[in-house]
This record gives sequence, C-alpha cells and structure tokens, in this order.
Amino acid sequence: MTKKVTFKPYDITIEVEDGENLLRAALEAGVHINASCGGEGVCGKCKILVESGDLDSLRGGLVSDMEWTLGYRQACQSQISTDVVVRIPPESLLDRHTLVRRRAGIGLRPSPLDLAALRAQGLYNPAFQKKFVKLPPANLADNICDLTRLENGLGRQYGLDNLAHDFFMLRKLARVMRQENFEVTATLDFAQRLSRKPRVVNLEPGDTTREHFALAVDIGTTTVWVQLLDLAQGEIIGHAADYNAQLSYGDDVITRILYSQKEQGLQKLQKSAAATINQVMHRLLKRHKLPVDEISHITVAGNTTMTHLFYGIDPKYIRLAPYTPAVCHLPPVRARDLGLEVPEHVFIYSVSSVSSYVGGDIVAGVLGSGIYKEPKLTLYIDIGTNGEIVIGNQQWLACAACSAGPAFEGGGIRHGMRATSGAIEDASINPDTYEPMIITIDMVKPKGICGSGLINILAALMEADLISPNGKFRDDLATPRIRMGDSGREYVLAMAPDTQTGQDIALSEADIDNLMRAKGAMFAGYLTLLENVGLRLQDIEQVILAGAFGNFINIDNAILIGLLPDLPREQFQFVGNGSLMGATLLAFSRELLEEERRVADMMTNFELSETPGYMNQYIAALFLPHTQEEYFPTVNERLRAGRG
Amino acid sequence: MTKKVTFKPYDITIEVEDGENLLRAALEAGVHINASCGGEGVCGKCKILVESGDLDSLRGGLVSDMEWTLGYRQACQSQISTDVVVRIPPESLLDRHTLVRRRAGIGLRPSPLDLAALRAQGLYNPAFQKKFVKLPPANLADNICDLTRLENGLGRQYGLDNLAHDFFMLRKLARVMRQENFEVTATLDFAQRLSRKPRVVNLEPGDTTREHFALAVDIGTTTVWVQLLDLAQGEIIGHAADYNAQLSYGDDVITRILYSQKEQGLQKLQKSAAATINQVMHRLLKRHKLPVDEISHITVAGNTTMTHLFYGIDPKYIRLAPYTPAVCHLPPVRARDLGLEVPEHVFIYSVSSVSSYVGGDIVAGVLGSGIYKEPKLTLYIDIGTNGEIVIGNQQWLACAACSAGPAFEGGGIRHGMRATSGAIEDASINPDTYEPMIITIDMVKPKGICGSGLINILAALMEADLISPNGKFRDDLATPRIRMGDSGREYVLAMAPDTQTGQDIALSEADIDNLMRAKGAMFAGYLTLLENVGLRLQDIEQVILAGAFGNFINIDNAILIGLLPDLPREQFQFVGNGSLMGATLLAFSRELLEEERRVADMMTNFELSETPGYMNQYIAALFLPHTQEEYFPTVNERLRAGRG
Repeated sequence: MTKKVTFKPYDITIEVEDGENLLRAALEAGVHINASCGGEGVCGKCKILVESGDLDSLRGGLVSDMEWTLGYRQACQSQISTDVVVRIPPESLLDRHTLVRRRAGIGLRPSPLDLAALRAQGLYNPAFQKKFVKLPPANLADNICDLTRLENGLGRQYGLDNLAHDFFMLRKLARVMRQENFEVTATLDFAQRLSRKPRVVNLEPGDTTREHFALAVDIGTTTVWVQLLDLAQGEIIGHAADYNAQLSYGDDVITRILYSQKEQGLQKLQKSAAATINQVMHRLLKRHKLPVDEISHITVAGNTTMTHLFYGIDPKYIRLAPYTPAVCHLPPVRARDLGLEVPEHVFIYSVSSVSSYVGGDIVAGVLGSGIYKEPKLTLYIDIGTNGEIVIGNQQWLACAACSAGPAFEGGGIRHGMRATSGAIEDASINPDTYEPMIITIDMVKPKGICGSGLINILAALMEADLISPNGKFRDDLATPRIRMGDSGREYVLAMAPDTQTGQDIALSEADIDNLMRAKGAMFAGYLTLLENVGLRLQDIEQVILAGAFGNFINIDNAILIGLLPDLPREQFQFVGNGSLMGATLLAFSRELLEEERRVADMMTNFELSETPGYMNQYIAALFLPHTQEEYFPTVNERLRAGRG
Repeated sequence: MTKKVTFKPYDITIEVEDGENLLRAALEAGVHINASCGGEGVCGKCKILVESGDLDSLRGGLVSDMEWTLGYRQACQSQISTDVVVRIPPESLLDRHTLVRRRAGIGLRPSPLDLAALRAQGLYNPAFQKKFVKLPPANLADNICDLTRLENGLGRQYGLDNLAHDFFMLRKLARVMRQENFEVTATLDFAQRLSRKPRVVNLEPGDTTREHFALAVDIGTTTVWVQLLDLAQGEIIGHAADYNAQLSYGDDVITRILYSQKEQGLQKLQKSAAATINQVMHRLLKRHKLPVDEISHITVAGNTTMTHLFYGIDPKYIRLAPYTPAVCHLPPVRARDLGLEVPEHVFIYSVSSVSSYVGGDIVAGVLGSGIYKEPKLTLYIDIGTNGEIVIGNQQWLACAACSAGPAFEGGGIRHGMRATSGAIEDASINPDTYEPMIITIDMVKPKGICGSGLINILAALMEADLISPNGKFRDDLATPRIRMGDSGREYVLAMAPDTQTGQDIALSEADIDNLMRAKGAMFAGYLTLLENVGLRLQDIEQVILAGAFGNFINIDNAILIGLLPDLPREQFQFVGNGSLMGATLLAFSRELLEEERRVADMMTNFELSETPGYMNQYIAALFLPHTQEEYFPTVNERLRAGRG
C-alpha cells in the first residue's frame, strides 16, 4: 500500500510507502524543509501544517497546544498513514531565494530529454523495442523448432529477418510460446553493438508491448543516480539516488585507484558499485511497483575510473604517467556478470570515455546537451576535483581535464566541507564594517564552507576590497575580522559561539591560494584549449555548466574570481546532471546508442601538462581575477562600482 | 612426472602419470587386454610380459614363480613407475579377429580430418587464430587507452580493423600488455557468429602463437567424448571419454526428458552433462599437461535432446506431438554460463539440429563425412535407439528418424545388454547339430547379448535355417536348443552353468519380433525417404555407417537380416564417431563453423509417421529379410548357398 503526499506551496505530490517518515518523503520529493537537528526532533524547525488528511505524529514539547490544534506537526516526527496534503510554512522553508534569484538570470538549458523535441528530430527511437506476434500453433505438418517459428512470425509481421538471439531467452522459449497459445511479445535490440542482426533478448506471453522499461545509471564518484524509463510511452518515470558505497574506500578517484591495488581491492570496489546500483534500482522499482523483469536493458555513464571500477577493470595506469585507461569503449556486458540483480538477458551499455580524466560522464554530457550537433562554438564545463572542459561544435570537439584539485569540494581548505547541512553557501560583507552575513545550507549554525560558499565569500572579499588581486589580505584595516592565523592572515566568518563546531570558521590566505590554483587551472585550461585550436575567449557563443556543483554556482561571482570567463551572462546555461541525461538518451535513441562512440572519438584529448603554453597560462591566472585585465572587462567595472 | 608405456604387439605408446595402473593405461590407449574380473586380480587373465623397464606390481597367487621370473605380471595389479615396454601375450589378447576380419572387407572412410586434405581444400582455416603484436609503449604524447593501442597494433600489423572484444579479456588487458613490454599475443575469433567483426577473445604476454588449443565435444546419450585440438599445428592431440553422468537419470532420451520435467530435473541433467565434460576435459588436459587457460573455444555436437539438456533448455515438447524442439540453432554461449570450468572468455559453438530426432550429432556427421559437398547419392545411417537416416548429396539432403526402438542396444530383448564385458557379440550355429559357438566381449562367460550379437545371432539362425522368414522358429527339429519358453519358442545360446548369471541365455520369438520391428523401421525409412524424392535403392552410390554401433556391425549379417540395403559391399564405409568428427571440423574450419547452419537448413526433415507410404513400407519390412525378395538379391543367394 502506498500513500500520496502533497507538499504546498510547491504542489509537488509523490507516492510513498505506508508509514514513511514525512521528512524523508520531503527529501525524496526534492522539497526542502529547514531541519537542523538531522531529524532528531529537538530543533523544532521542521514544523509543517496538515491541510488535509492526517499524519501519525509524535508530539514533543516543541509544538505548542495551539499549534497542535491548528494542525502543525514536526515533519521529522511524523509518519504518513493516509493520503495527506501538507504546507511548509515560510519559517520552515529553506532559504534558497538568493540562489534561485541568481540562477533565474542565467537559465536552465532546455532539456534535450523533451520527447516532443526528440521525436521532431527523429531521435526518439529506442534501440530496444517490443513486437507482438501471433504465431500459427505447431502441428505435425509444421513442427519446426519454436525459435524458427518465432523468427518466421517476426519476419511475416514485421519484415524482420536474419535475427540473433540472447541465449537465456531460449531457455524459456518453449514454455512462454505455449502460455498464451503462441501469442507472444518479443523484445528486440536493434542496436548493432552486440550483433550485426536485430537481437531477440526477451519473450513474454501475450501482448506486453505497453510495458517496456529500461534504466539509465549515472555512477558518480560520490553519488549514484538511477533513472527509470518507460520506453513504451517515451517517458522518464522517476529517479532515485544514493551515495556510492565505494565512499568507504576513499573520497576521490585517486584514493579509490590506490585501494583497487590492494588484495581483493578491485573486487570490493566493483561489488560496492554494483550493490549501490542494486539498492537504488530496487528502491526505485518498488516505488513504481514494477517487477525487475520488465527491464530490457541498462545504460550507464561514469567517469573513467568509476567505469573501470564498476566493470572490474584494473584502473592502475589511470593514475600513473602516462595516464592510460585500459578501456575507453566497452562492449555491451551481461548485467549479471557485473553483479546486478536483473534478468539474465539484460545487458549494460556504457558511454565511452575519451581519456583517463575525460570520462563517460563528460561524453554523456556532450551527448545529452547536444553540443556535438550544434553549430555554436560551445564551452562545456564540469567543475569538481577534476574540472573537465570541452570546447567545440558539430564539427570538432577538444577536451581536457584540469587538475583543479578538490578545493571546490571543500578539500585543502581548512574549514571546507561538502555541500551538506551547516555549510556556508553564501555570504556578503558589509563594505563599511567588514562584518559578514552568512547563509548556510538548511539555515543552521555554520559548520564549514562548501564550494559555492567559497566562490561567494571570495567574491565578497574582493567586492569589499579586503584582498588584493594576488590573494593577500589588506593589512591596513582595523577590523577584528582580519587577523593573523596559523597559515597567514585570515578572515573570520563566524566566531566559535556561533558555530556548530565550537571553533571559529575562517578563510585564510593559504585557502585563498588553493582556490586561486583551482580556478587558475580551469581558466588556463579554457585558454590553452582555445589557443590550440586558434580561437579566443570572445569566440565562444555559449557556456554550459554541468554537474551538481554547476547547478548551485553563482555565475557572477564565479566570473568575478576568474573561475568562469567574462562572457555575456545570457550565454551561460545549466544543464543539470549531464551524465544521467546522456545515459537516458542512449536508451531513448538507437542512433545515439550506436553513435556515442563516434562522439567520444570526435573529442580530441589534450593532456594539459604536456600542452605548450599551459604552464604560462596557469601562472598568469593565479590572480584575482587574472593578471590580464582584458579578459575580465565587466569584473573591473563591478569592482570599481563596489568600491566607488 | 609422466612415464611412457608401450604395448606390444600393437606398438602403441602413451604417456601416463607416474603410478598409473597398467590396465587403466591399456584402456586409455585403446589396447584391449582380456580381463574378466574387472581388475580385482582374481581371474589372472590379464597377464602381460615386461619386455623392458619395470613395473611396480603386486604378486598374487595367480602368477607362478616361473612366470614371475620370466617377467609376467598381472596388468591390473601393476603400477607404472618407469618407462616400460610390455607385451600382451596371445592368451590375454581380446579376440576381435572376427570383427577385424569382417570390417577389413568394408573399409573405413578416409578421414575428413586428414589435415593435408583439409588444407588442399582450403578448409584448414580455424575461425580462432592467434596474432602476435609488438605495440609501441605508451608515453605522454601517445597515451590512448590500452584497447585502442591494441586495435591500432592489430590494424598496422595484420590489416585488421573494426574489432570487437570479449568483455572478460578487457579485465586483464592493462596487466598483460605491460608484462612483456607491450608485446602480446591476441586470440581472435573470425567466425561471424557472435559479432560482425573479428572478436578479440584473449590476450597473453609475449609470443604464444605456437600454443593454441581448442576442445571438440560429442555429448552422447550414453558417452561423452572430448577431443583436444592443437590449432597452431593443426593436429588432434588426443581424446578421452566417459559415461554421461545423466545415465543415472535414465538410459535414453525419453526417460531423460521425463526426468527433466521433475522439480529441478532439468537443472540436474544440465549439471550432470557439464560435470561429465569437465571431468573428461580435465583428465585429457592433465594427460597432455596443458593448463585449461590455453583453450580458446569449444565446439560441441549432440542429439537434439542432449543439446537441449546441456544448454538447460526445456526439452518437454520434443517428446510430445507434434514433436517440436525449442531451438535447433544455438547462438554461441559463454561456457561458464553452462558450468564448464574454463576461462571466462571461452564460448561454446554448437552444431545445429534439424528436428526433434535428427540432431546436431547427425548434422555433425554429415559435415564430418563431407557428404553435403559430394556429388554421389549417399545413404548415411546412424543406428541406435532412434535410427537416423540421411539421403542426398551436394544438392539436397533428406533426413528422418526411425523409431527403431532400443532393440539394437539390447533394450526390449530379454537377455539384451550393452556392449560390455560378457556380452555375446558374435555367434555361429552348426547347421547339422544346431549347436552354437559364441564369442563374448572380453572372452568371458556370457552375461547377455549386445546389439551386434543380436544381428549376428539372427543371421546365424537364418543361415542355419532355424527360423522362417516371418521370424518363427521351425517346430520340426529335434534339438534341445529350440524350446518353448515364457514368450513363445526360443533358441538357447548358453546354458545356465556356462553363464555368469547362472541362467540360460536364449533368444525368443518375442525378441526376434522386436528386432524385426527395429530393422523394419530402418528399412522402411530408407525406402520412404527415397520414394519421396523419386529415387530407388539402386540409385544409392554409397552407404556411410556412423556411430559406435556402426563400427562393430557385421555388414553381411546386417544385410542378411534386412537391416541394411543389399548393395555392393564396397559401397559401405564406416565413418566412426561422425558427431565428434564434425565438432572437430568446426574448430578446424571457419567456413564450416559459419556454414554448419546452412547444412542443417539444407536437410529436409520427414516425420515418417506422417509420411504417406511409411506404414505400408514398415509392414512389408517385418520379414526376414523382407517381403519383397527383389530388394535382397545377394541374400537369397547366400541363404540358398548356406542351406545347399
């Protein structure tokens, strides 16, 4: 039994299992409720108002008699036992207005998953299709083998001939054919990746052409996303995600590669990835009440290391010069052979990688964003530990990975942290008092600073004229906010009494140095790639930001600090999870499934450390925003305005 | 450590493990030593003479002091601890001279496995080939993925492009490539059965092109044969065999199909077949000191039911009208998925079946004997529980299975038995006294009668004029050998004191009736097939007898009783194990591997029970030799001569 829960004011409705916790349901629905105690029920901030239906709630001391009577409940103390409509009162809303406001000016790229558009382009044409056939029952005058009968039927009704067959389908053939008197539905794989012929992968009794599903998977270093696709209707039904269980063996690809070299390390990492996918998949299927047998195939995308690890292929040489992946283009692989709990006939189709550090996630993003078939010169950026860059258009694509380092993920920054509750994600500094105003995720006491926070704080420091272009704090100001710390001067964002950690949270010159290196590596990457193809920054016609981080980035501030190029703001677009989008497109479009390798092969990889000019560009970029002012015309205006 | 043992007077030498039992070694070598106690050491019949070297023998009371001094040992009590030459004295030789004599007049068909002949026809061209490549080591200016490096190398050195790859090969790619400084040997599958492109299935460090092996398997209902093939040299290295472990679930295909319908029955039968192959394979590989990793692929042939069971495909409808197999043409299947203990990249290629009762064993025989490409009109016969018949030439092939019943395997015959020790395999009857002379396998006291014995006894009864053409014993003879038994009259071959069972061994009219039905079904089959293609017996230009039984059949006697057509004896040829030969040819010849399905499709199947005229032909054949004398001109002569 499932229940419906509707969240006001968003009007988002989802179905959940009977008894589901309301706070969890909100997370699942993507609805943010301020909740700073992690669901312990002690902060009282997650109060919601029941508008219709009822909740099965515990009442603690944090809900007054009046509130209780009015219908207020603590979300974290409530279980869903009926269909219910709840309203999230303003005081419980997560304050994301700054992000929303800033993002609004930039715009989300129109999704290439818009099916009408895909159909219009002739791209909605799944490689896997179901065909219903009525076969003449066998008799003594016509007792050919069941498989030939099926082939003849598919030939007669659909003009298909010269078919291939998945072996495991054959094991149930005789039984299934007789279950509905020789009326069957065959699932065919028309992608020519595994066989030169259309391949019958599954057979079901009767007409099941209306029920045909596939899964698209994004294997992120941190998070694994699974998307459930309805191929009969051409719809994305839903998605689910969880942390990659490999996290217990290391946070980033390098530590995972190191772990893979230990005894049984590769096997453990492979199993962890498979276990995560299984878990997320089962949850997703359960939510949509679909048996796993309805899945005809799986498409996946991930960075080169994640792909190696999921397939159980030794990634050792990805880490060692000259940085060679073992395999960039994987053949379709039986999902069971990788430990996925799906029917035997299910194969996995993986998006190709380009090089050790430009992986299938980036290729999927290029596919998903469609830039490989657009005339516009595009800069595609995915910022993470390794910032990946793609520049090009329908005629050529150049790509590179920048060793940006983990600064934007909070790594190497004394008070850096992931973008979770308590992370400072925005800040402004009073230009007169130098006092900060900080906003944390979930609006709780600060614990540290996340990536978008680092960009915004650095921008605020620049706007308040607290640091010089070389990243050093001014020493001529009489403010307690700037002081000498363990690693040079630092700016104190929050004093110990105001933090969750009980320690001051500050940003030091050493931190700023790390951030400058990270953004400098990215910017030098853009320029080096452009230089190598004889183009300039101004030639870029659009900039696409991909990845979770990209979605929360403040474009103006990222330009201000020199992380993004100073181009007209309307040229910037967010693409969301390009990797998942690309994987989904492979399932929706036979052409893309067959062409993805061509797109990967089209992407010329530059090893920046080996590319002439890169080091000079990098050194020139170690400045705020840059040593060459002409690259940042609007920034200088803005800084002048701020100080003026 | 292995030792060599040479058997005189045959001059057959084999290598065996240190400590191997000599009697076992003889069996392995195909050398027959009379041994009636099964190796217990109590019959003393298996004495051999050590000519050079030494044996590690136990001495029982059955070897006299004189014999021991001269070098006589009991084979069954001896272990091989040095290289040794032994002579089998005449008294220990298995008396097969009658068989050898009779067979000599007929001749073994020149083996199509003669490699010179294969090469001359351009057919020696294994689908799997090894290619050695020297790859340029990776460096920073050239750090493409290992797989692309391999592809480029194969392209440069061998003009190969557009390659496919076995997934499991990719897992060891990075390691293997670096083991001998980027010098590797790739094993490629050029057969287009699994992929339209040449497929890299394995990779080894250094140059291993001289070591390339495959296995051919014949999955018989009773016996499983495995042949070890050296594809680098183009040689058959050896073979081994064992009883199909499925025997414990039933002797024939029908009882196995019935068993497969029980809970877990199919799984048990599948595992039994795989276990038998594993066991025989490991023994064979151990004997030739080959690690299983050297095997690149496996070819198999078996009848339709055996093929279904080995692949775990439900054979239910093979047994039920209208007798449809599930699958006649199987795709290549990963051997591990069927439980074979071979490397992950090994695939199994199976010979196609034609119908429920004309299986891959017969198609393999047609391939192996080469009749599908000969102009001569050929009758190909495999006699067993189901006698399979193929008639045709390079232009057309017609085939049928006759429900001959198990009579020729000893089934339905009161004293019938398999062709094992103690089975009467030959007999003659004194035309004056009506006393028999019987010869048993291993020359021991008789236990029963095997198939070839039944033919020879029936022929002897006819020649001695003891039975009339309708299969009834004459009642006008005063001999104790003919008497009234439980099921009509019977001829007593051995009296209780002379038998192992302590019971009389006789052949009754009921037994003869069964034999007449069996041979009648076969003969009606030949005539019906011929009639349906507008031909007559006399048009046949050659007759090929396949299968183990075929090898021991006395042609003259088989013609005499009306089992084989009365054609010039020089037209008859034995082909041996056609199934194993066909499977071997698939490994030797890419053309055959790709064409075997075409040959199977070329074979038009006749369901005799549904074919007009068959029943009449069958009834007409229930006579010794036949109601129509003109079919058997020489037989009548011979009978007249015998009686004259």
